[in-house]
Amino acid sequence: MAKTSRTKKEQPIILITNDDGITAPGIKALVEAVKNLGKVIVVAPDKPQSGMGHAITIGHPLRLSTVQLFGDVEAYHCSGTPVDCVKLAVDKVLHRKPDICLSGINHGANHSINVIYSGTMSAALEASIESIPSVGFSLLDYSIEADFTGAAYYANLLVKQLLGKKIDKHLCLNVNIPPAPKELLKGLKICRQAYAKYEERFDERQDPTGRKYYWLTGEFQNFDKGKDTDVWALENNYISVVPVQFDLTNYQLKTTLQKVLTKKH
Amino acid sequence: MAKTSRTKKEQPIILITNDDGITAPGIKALVEAVKNLGKVIVVAPDKPQSGMGHAITIGHPLRLSTVQLFGDVEAYHCSGTPVDCVKLAVDKVLHRKPDICLSGINHGANHSINVIYSGTMSAALEASIESIPSVGFSLLDYSIEADFTGAAYYANLLVKQLLGKKIDKHLCLNVNIPPAPKELLKGLKICRQAYAKYEERFDERQDPTGRKYYWLTGEFQNFDKGKDTDVWALENNYISVVPVQFDLTNYQLKTTLQKVLTKKH
Repeated sequence: MAKTSRTKKEQPIILITNDDGITAPGIKALVEAVKNLGKVIVVAPDKPQSGMGHAITIGHPLRLSTVQLFGDVEAYHCSGTPVDCVKLAVDKVLHRKPDICLSGINHGANHSINVIYSGTMSAALEASIESIPSVGFSLLDYSIEADFTGAAYYANLLVKQLLGKKIDKHLCLNVNIPPAPKELLKGLKICRQAYAKYEERFDERQDPTGRKYYWLTGEFQNFDKGKDTDVWALENNYISVVPVQFDLTNYQLKTTLQKVLTKKH
Repeated sequence: MAKTSRTKKEQPIILITNDDGITAPGIKALVEAVKNLGKVIVVAPDKPQSGMGHAITIGHPLRLSTVQLFGDVEAYHCSGTPVDCVKLAVDKVLHRKPDICLSGINHGANHSINVIYSGTMSAALEASIESIPSVGFSLLDYSIEADFTGAAYYANLLVKQLLGKKIDKHLCLNVNIPPAPKELLKGLKICRQAYAKYEERFDERQDPTGRKYYWLTGEFQNFDKGKDTDVWALENNYISVVPVQFDLTNYQLKTTLQKVLTKKH
């Protein structure tokens, strides 16, 4: 990785975080999958943080503690969000930028619009904002007993490839793995983000005192017929790889707006 | 707005939310600024939610209550995040999509990379995902006594223009207003998001029992010399208008990766 300061003899530093919390089986699978590729350091939330998006903690302070959960791998849990974990790891644990930041393996899908809500992907995107190449991994299986064998195999393969190449310091990959046995997976496929989302509604319920409350629910719908999308790839047993960016400018709309909103005020 | 179901005689429905919470002066300024343009309904967080990014509440239920804060304007406060407010407003308050969703006026900047962390802009982006055109407004003044006169003037002007046009149902605008008197503002400028961010670090402190804690701090730095950016526009007393998208695919990198990651596994 030419754009970092690592010399040939040094091991790459691999920072690992997630959003399911430090005790989730998925992060353990990721640590095991890549620990032969460099020096792994884990800084992950001390509790589940799914759906936190790119939240950061600004109104109160953060705690950070060492924890023994991954054998001889240095690990810390943090009271903040996934994004907080990345920031705190760089400033107070590593005291430098790692060579790569990995997030996951998430229990559940982060393809299509999920990338926006996902703490897993926000941690990866934060790293990329900080000029640290990053990859978020998600397995399409929410269960605590999910089988990470295939996901772990491809995580190792992809990270090894990335560490062996000159890569963009802002690289951020959103990798989703179908919930299939390893031997049925067809390999990595570079994709775009599908326009597919949850059609949401709220269950309206009553608490024991008769007051209403609302619980988010909904069904996934794919509005995108493209065969170059992450949703298509996953439905066809490919591992989807979407390069993700933090420049949210809609350049096409920018050009249109320059024509329609240029009246004198 | 041709792409919604409103007929000519009906007033447009304007949904307003924010991330500073329903009692913030900024949201009151926004309600006052646009209430002559349609039927305004407010659904906003019951407490400050700055820095919440695109967080959603999935692990616990939400509460929603009516509140009398804006004269005869229908208003609700919600226990969730800004994104929750938009979802809940559509499903349980309006029972339809509003014609436009406005968020803010935020107390503080949401230009450049701030768009990613901002609850104000995440609410607007959520609306745009839901096929509701949206605008987030932010004034570059964090103080509770900020003067919203100029911001309110341009909010009215912009929303009036948008409601009078055929606009894309996924339109989402990130509008930032310089902290200058109205007469010094030079008008709207369509921009791209600057690569400018906070160079962050954490203050390390000790609590009364001697345990360490960390508090996020940092300084804003602009790495982008472009004169077409939001940061440049704001420094030159323009109101920056950045069209924002929820497709995070980095198409340029997608093409590069297709060349380098296509080895057989």
